[in-house]
Amino acid sequence: MRMKNWLDKRCDLTPNRIALIGAGEQLTFGELRLRARQTAGRLAALGAGKSDRVALLCRNGLHVPELVHAIHYLGAVLVPLNTRLTPRELEYQLQDAACVCLIYDEAYRAQVEAIQEQLPQLRCVRTDELQSVGSSGVPLQAEIETEDLHTIMYTSGTTGNPKGVLLSYDNHWSSAVGSVLNLGFTEHDRWLAAVPLFHISGLSILMRSVIYGMTVVIHERFDPAAANRAIQEQGVTIVSVVSNMLARMLDELNGKRYPDTFRCMLLGGGPAPRPLLEACRDQGIPVFQTYGMTETSSQIVTLPPEFSLTKLGSAGKPLFLSELRVMKDGTAAPPYIEGEIEVRGANVTRGYLNRPDATAKAIRDGWLATGDIGYVDEEGFLYVLDRRNDLIISGGENVYPAEIEAVLLSHPAVAEAGVIGMEDDTWGQVPVAFITLRGGVVQPKEEEVLAFCRERLARYKVPSRVYVVEALPRNASNKLLRRELSKLIPTGEE
Amino acid sequence: MRMKNWLDKRCDLTPNRIALIGAGEQLTFGELRLRARQTAGRLAALGAGKSDRVALLCRNGLHVPELVHAIHYLGAVLVPLNTRLTPRELEYQLQDAACVCLIYDEAYRAQVEAIQEQLPQLRCVRTDELQSVGSSGVPLQAEIETEDLHTIMYTSGTTGNPKGVLLSYDNHWSSAVGSVLNLGFTEHDRWLAAVPLFHISGLSILMRSVIYGMTVVIHERFDPAAANRAIQEQGVTIVSVVSNMLARMLDELNGKRYPDTFRCMLLGGGPAPRPLLEACRDQGIPVFQTYGMTETSSQIVTLPPEFSLTKLGSAGKPLFLSELRVMKDGTAAPPYIEGEIEVRGANVTRGYLNRPDATAKAIRDGWLATGDIGYVDEEGFLYVLDRRNDLIISGGENVYPAEIEAVLLSHPAVAEAGVIGMEDDTWGQVPVAFITLRGGVVQPKEEEVLAFCRERLARYKVPSRVYVVEALPRNASNKLLRRELSKLIPTGEE
Repeated sequence: MRMKNWLDKRCDLTPNRIALIGAGEQLTFGELRLRARQTAGRLAALGAGKSDRVALLCRNGLHVPELVHAIHYLGAVLVPLNTRLTPRELEYQLQDAACVCLIYDEAYRAQVEAIQEQLPQLRCVRTDELQSVGSSGVPLQAEIETEDLHTIMYTSGTTGNPKGVLLSYDNHWSSAVGSVLNLGFTEHDRWLAAVPLFHISGLSILMRSVIYGMTVVIHERFDPAAANRAIQEQGVTIVSVVSNMLARMLDELNGKRYPDTFRCMLLGGGPAPRPLLEACRDQGIPVFQTYGMTETSSQIVTLPPEFSLTKLGSAGKPLFLSELRVMKDGTAAPPYIEGEIEVRGANVTRGYLNRPDATAKAIRDGWLATGDIGYVDEEGFLYVLDRRNDLIISGGENVYPAEIEAVLLSHPAVAEAGVIGMEDDTWGQVPVAFITLRGGVVQPKEEEVLAFCRERLARYKVPSRVYVVEALPRNASNKLLRRELSKLIPTGEE
Repeated sequence: MRMKNWLDKRCDLTPNRIALIGAGEQLTFGELRLRARQTAGRLAALGAGKSDRVALLCRNGLHVPELVHAIHYLGAVLVPLNTRLTPRELEYQLQDAACVCLIYDEAYRAQVEAIQEQLPQLRCVRTDELQSVGSSGVPLQAEIETEDLHTIMYTSGTTGNPKGVLLSYDNHWSSAVGSVLNLGFTEHDRWLAAVPLFHISGLSILMRSVIYGMTVVIHERFDPAAANRAIQEQGVTIVSVVSNMLARMLDELNGKRYPDTFRCMLLGGGPAPRPLLEACRDQGIPVFQTYGMTETSSQIVTLPPEFSLTKLGSAGKPLFLSELRVMKDGTAAPPYIEGEIEVRGANVTRGYLNRPDATAKAIRDGWLATGDIGYVDEEGFLYVLDRRNDLIISGGENVYPAEIEAVLLSHPAVAEAGVIGMEDDTWGQVPVAFITLRGGVVQPKEEEVLAFCRERLARYKVPSRVYVVEALPRNASNKLLRRELSKLIPTGEE
């Protein structure tokens, strides 16, 4: 289907509405369009044209949506890069996506210099230099074809090279429409993006902004006090978070209440610890759990507003344009039986760039096999248990790290927890735990924590060891990186 | 595209939300589904199946959405009939659409008896009889194909036989999505349907209800006091009206204010008199003018919230999925130049049933020629002047009845006004006016009203006669039927 360019259409409708609020600056949709069109002319002068891939290596800021829309005015394809990657990892993605240019922030100059040694042909331009590039008079794309490619976004993957997820205009559109039919929207809404804009959680907020006509408040990095201030003083009504961010906001909030205008804490990024959800409930924080991934253009399953208390711990129901099933031994599992989560819908990717085999393996008849484990209750609400690749099998029993982590987090002294499986001669695997402690508490002995677990978990689920560490490894979205945990085991104990 | 049945999907998401409130009764989405599925089984027992056309001749009530969803559970096509039509007019539509059965309310028994004399093969069942029909065990359609036909709705047309407008699931879906991206939605919204459900203005509210998960309050007939009470006491936040309804609500309101929760008076059905818009503005009533028709599945152009005051009198901008142009002499007219309004978009019909010629004439390259006259200002806001078929050409000058009516309505004694063109030997046509008077005022002389017009209108626009009448002819949507006005001329004066 052909549609008018989204930013142009939005400016036809509400040019004077605030589109973006950043550090000391705000832009209306009309101003954003003006800047995006100027930037498009500069990117064209660098050689970017229709269907070309343009990579961004940028911190969060107002310049990101400007660049995103500029890229789409050219009919080019956006390739957002994770700023925490090593030069070698970035080179892989730039080559795999055959990017024609890389726009980067000054902060990443060292990485880009290393990249340029390996990829001397790649045109690399700093965002501050881009301002002085003369604009080419190339005509901008007034219309889009919804089937066209909009974004290539790499998923970290647990093994092997990352895969470039292909996202079309229609994928983003369907995601935004599915979300508004669940969460609603009014012109007074303001969505805080303190998650990275190079991840789908952040990019999807920018898409909703232009489609709904919604103000987005962009934070350069997540800071719990700043996030709380945005809610309390700047009229933010919706925030995207993962559990770790939410826990830190709750701590910082220190018993204070959010104003009644705050209506949605959208909690993604994996299973959430029940004590955290209960603490939010007790403090009147409207948490909406959600389940999604790059391949689904963000949310695909979200808890509807009226179930946020009665279905605590559930990720909810598939959005209006999406479907869900739990597969076990090749058939759809009945309620309460665990299996692999499969999803389908207009927001689901058509596949991976240059990976016909991986695509064919992951997507069959439109159903994407997520690799995640969960079950649905008798009313069809999804409960996500874990990522399949993290599953620990001990003495023939399935052990889900998230379940053990939730118990550890309910201990009053524990701030964060991560669990992995370690090889064991007797049981095949045994769970091993890593925790960080809250400040100002008496440090518990390992045996004390183990005793706490034994009271709450079947024997085979109790960790064989609990290591107290300074910090847990997390990615840029603050998701726990379980596969990095084994590196934290003290030397000599591996 | 395939989608899950909308009512099933809605019940997956929010089964316990209130779907419908009628006289002394309310239904959740779950209850509505249960009833719709039972009704589907009964319709199937009457012989209705996939792709069959099922006609409804019903007053407004909770049984209408029940029947609408039942028809779609069968994959059948809805043919809503206007209850004000004569048996002969109804017969035409039933035959043209090849309806397999007609479900009607007791109130229309006489019309249906007359129809059955002419169409003895047609299966006609009263809604109260339907309850006792045994259900057939036919499997219901769990999925829809969005390209499939959903509704055939006849447009009154100004000449000749009415035409059956073909509306697909995608047309209704795109209309609902376009509307929510302009007006927004929260789960606290309640939309009052006091317009007929057999017209697109009413039916589209039922579609939004199931797509958004929104409560609809259904009034059997429009009553200004009841409509005001629904806003003041029953939490209604949005009302669909035409100007005549709005004027009566404003009169009845008698200076009182609506609560702040009331957020949208959606005003369609043709150009609105400026004095009415100004009175609403002065009383803080949030009026959103809109422009649409059966062929566009309701709204296609609506004023965005922030322009309701600054663009008073404009119908607004085309919704997110729609486009607009004003054509004059075969090309798009510049701002402020009047021409025929053409529209395009995913909510626009693919054409008319059994009328390839009329379809080809009305729709070219996706653009629907509406027959309506208007212009856009320099910012692209649409101002609808009149329906082209009502255009009066007098002495070579174009005269738009709505402009003259607006002047008449600004006279303190005038309650309603309608203007038509009458043949004239000298000028070709001359405008003639019909007015009703407000209660409790001194009845003005015709000469006095004409003098009032002469002060405000160019000479060629001043009516040659002004007739004071008891009531103006209106259709079930309260739209003025100008072509009926000439019948009001006293005998001997024609």
